[in-house]
Amino acid sequence: MSGLTYRSVGVDVERKEDALRRVREKVARARRPEVIGDIGAFAGLFRFGGYRDPVLVATTDGVGTKIEVARRLGRYEVCGTDVVHQSVDDALAMGAEPLFFLDYFSTGRIDPAIFARIVGAIADACAAHRCALLGGETSEMPDVYGEGSFDLAGFLVGVVERDRILDPSAAREGDVLIGLPSTGLHTNGYTLARAAVARAAEAEGSAIEDELRRARPELRGSSLGDALLEPHRSYLEDVRRLRDAVAIRSIAHITGGAWEGNVPRALPDGLGAAIDRAAWTVPPVFRILARMGGVAEEEQWRTWNMGIGLVAVVPGDGERAALRALPDAISIGSVERASGPTRVRFV
Amino acid sequence: MSGLTYRSVGVDVERKEDALRRVREKVARARRPEVIGDIGAFAGLFRFGGYRDPVLVATTDGVGTKIEVARRLGRYEVCGTDVVHQSVDDALAMGAEPLFFLDYFSTGRIDPAIFARIVGAIADACAAHRCALLGGETSEMPDVYGEGSFDLAGFLVGVVERDRILDPSAAREGDVLIGLPSTGLHTNGYTLARAAVARAAEAEGSAIEDELRRARPELRGSSLGDALLEPHRSYLEDVRRLRDAVAIRSIAHITGGAWEGNVPRALPDGLGAAIDRAAWTVPPVFRILARMGGVAEEEQWRTWNMGIGLVAVVPGDGERAALRALPDAISIGSVERASGPTRVRFV
Repeated sequence: MSGLTYRSVGVDVERKEDALRRVREKVARARRPEVIGDIGAFAGLFRFGGYRDPVLVATTDGVGTKIEVARRLGRYEVCGTDVVHQSVDDALAMGAEPLFFLDYFSTGRIDPAIFARIVGAIADACAAHRCALLGGETSEMPDVYGEGSFDLAGFLVGVVERDRILDPSAAREGDVLIGLPSTGLHTNGYTLARAAVARAAEAEGSAIEDELRRARPELRGSSLGDALLEPHRSYLEDVRRLRDAVAIRSIAHITGGAWEGNVPRALPDGLGAAIDRAAWTVPPVFRILARMGGVAEEEQWRTWNMGIGLVAVVPGDGERAALRALPDAISIGSVERASGPTRVRFV
Repeated sequence: MSGLTYRSVGVDVERKEDALRRVREKVARARRPEVIGDIGAFAGLFRFGGYRDPVLVATTDGVGTKIEVARRLGRYEVCGTDVVHQSVDDALAMGAEPLFFLDYFSTGRIDPAIFARIVGAIADACAAHRCALLGGETSEMPDVYGEGSFDLAGFLVGVVERDRILDPSAAREGDVLIGLPSTGLHTNGYTLARAAVARAAEAEGSAIEDELRRARPELRGSSLGDALLEPHRSYLEDVRRLRDAVAIRSIAHITGGAWEGNVPRALPDGLGAAIDRAAWTVPPVFRILARMGGVAEEEQWRTWNMGIGLVAVVPGDGERAALRALPDAISIGSVERASGPTRVRFV
């Protein structure tokens, strides 16, 4: 019986190096002048200066089981794009601009080609946001992850001047809620979405892949898979434009927990939101999923963003300027007094 | 057939909230005065100031399949401790002190009690290092992770004044290598270690648990499980003391890739390390694992730290001061010229 080696038990340091080599060029483009040295050091270095009273803003998130849809359809890039965009949006909700990002990619066995597509997309998204990709970890854990399975998390640090932090306590009764359309589910509620698709496939005796790949008239000929794999929208440019047009009070990024789970985070105690659901049309992807899974209306609004990915709270007299600054923005409701456990009221 | 709900498909927002409630007090103690607001915002806020020419130092890492040993023996806390300590040590290798930390915990189904033990240990380790626990993400991914399986990653940001960055290019031929003992494998090479234990169990017809739990005379009566679950040592206090005693050139944290994978990262091109393996006794845990798995000597040194977790490069005339400052430090070798692919030479 020959002795064990690290490679014989499933961890191949050279495979990991091969994977990293494939993304070197893209990673090299995801830099900023503040970055010192190269990836390969024990930690990334970012020279920091030029602010009056800076506050660092840090956030972490994974992309959830959207990964499973991406895997099933062999469309990996979206995972990389999403893990950056969602963190950019979380930082934005505090008023911050991104500085640098690190990724954590974990899998049973690294496939260098798949790794390169995901981390390449991360680097591209970072470069597009002038955010440095400052580091990352790639981990092979053969017993934790099944064949082809992986997880992906991101970590972003941004900065905001202290007097420009978006603070929920600034919101006032009568303020207006400006909604920005989402591109779909973004990165939340995929376990429910996938269960709905699985139920439809079972009911029709079809394969899940068929349900995902079939062209649908309600989606103007594109497929449910396409709709589910739309990248999480980055609102960085929108928020910059909005900030120039109006004094934003606060921002809610509609992620896990959907409406009730996020809108109150942008409001002080005692205030809530009245949301006019007639102000926009819920995109067909949500209606299709709800039908497939028999998901009750309230459960949909508790789980999915239903077509709005970011809500900015602005003073009532800023509504017109806000809508003028952002062509696809919608006035979706207002801030009102609220007591009790539920702070989002659909009208 | 009743409609799907998010809970019915395995994602329970209340279970997550229950889990978070259990760690609230510990998390509250892992603060610093710079932290603004509470966890619950879209991102953590950390007021930053008081430095001349600050460089932010960022790192991310998981704890690898040490998780599997911890799970098997029901000893979860060590995962939380490790994910903080290893990042502290990575930042230290650049000369930085920790500022704040965020964790990413992902599992099939959150067990609030286990979650509280892990994240509680993270908070304790952060508090002990005066590092703020600024945020985190807890993710339920029923199809990615098997029953009871989970993954854990950490992100740490530290700071160092620019003129105090530890820079590999500072190392000189003839410099001395000061080694600091590890507590065991730290967080690397567990897939090989577990395979070795599994092979021994198979050969002896025993259960893996028995191999892990049995008291062993070579371990002075403690078990292999105990040895494998020793926390990754934090070298923060050691490096502070060393810095006060001597001008450190650079530091290598011995993690994934072990000796050849890490010592050269603390040296400029053209220089390598001559390591005197007789300078210390390799701890018995490595010898037991090697025997169980029939792991060749060179493979051991390619995969495990073999008893030294951190190597500081100091000028030759600083050797005595370094050893005086750190009672358990060992002079393990010196910097020499090196060409060719291998830069660590064992003598």
